[in-house]
Amino acid sequence: MSSAGMMPTTSISVNMGSVQRIATIAPSCPPLLQAPLDVDDAEQLAAALKAIADPARLRLLSLIQAQQDHEACVCHLTEPLGLSQPTVSHHLKVLLQAGLVAREQRGSWAYFRVCEEPLATLRALLA
Amino acid sequence: MSSAGMMPTTSISVNMGSVQRIATIAPSCPPLLQAPLDVDDAEQLAAALKAIADPARLRLLSLIQAQQDHEACVCHLTEPLGLSQPTVSHHLKVLLQAGLVAREQRGSWAYFRVCEEPLATLRALLA
Repeated sequence: MSSAGMMPTTSISVNMGSVQRIATIAPSCPPLLQAPLDVDDAEQLAAALKAIADPARLRLLSLIQAQQDHEACVCHLTEPLGLSQPTVSHHLKVLLQAGLVAREQRGSWAYFRVCEEPLATLRALLA
Repeated sequence: MSSAGMMPTTSISVNMGSVQRIATIAPSCPPLLQAPLDVDDAEQLAAALKAIADPARLRLLSLIQAQQDHEACVCHLTEPLGLSQPTVSHHLKVLLQAGLVAREQRGSWAYFRVCEEPLATLRALLA
């Protein structure tokens, strides 16, 4: 059995069920240094931060943003990242669940673009 | 054998050897959405984000900041967090390695305070 073409699926550290949609955190969660966080707010913010605390997902966000028109389909991302299509798709799903990218289907291809508002929310909460 | 007083050491997800001192990232790493991150920069930024992507460490930072004079020793932190002293000490070490808290020894007690500059660095890199 050949293993040619198989890529190790490293850097997969988020349980999909626990990804926190960043837009749902802000109303209840004070900025980090303004008031003690309660357990729920801390867990929600930590889950949202875990969605970006991964080298492949950080590179994905920066690479999508650097494309023409700030959008990309998976086929544009596998080669520059050096990751397999299933691995890239997994990371895109984590980013999608966190609300950090938006997905638009066009014919047989899905296009992704970065949502800047959730990043602004994270910045505001880390203050 | 009694297990009274033993607390489970959950939420320990950072390999101490991989914690990234945030101050060392900034010069080489562009903000996330300004240019594609290379592998090294992405790994450094991800490691720094992992230092705060943990509910106990987020609560620790907010709790230290909320103390009188914005400083606390471990003995002030175990009860409000509901964590054992060794677990709190572990999380403080991770934050210390990331540069997110500073430690000052006074007699037999160590006092910790939040360093706001690394948080500002993280905010600047998530833009």
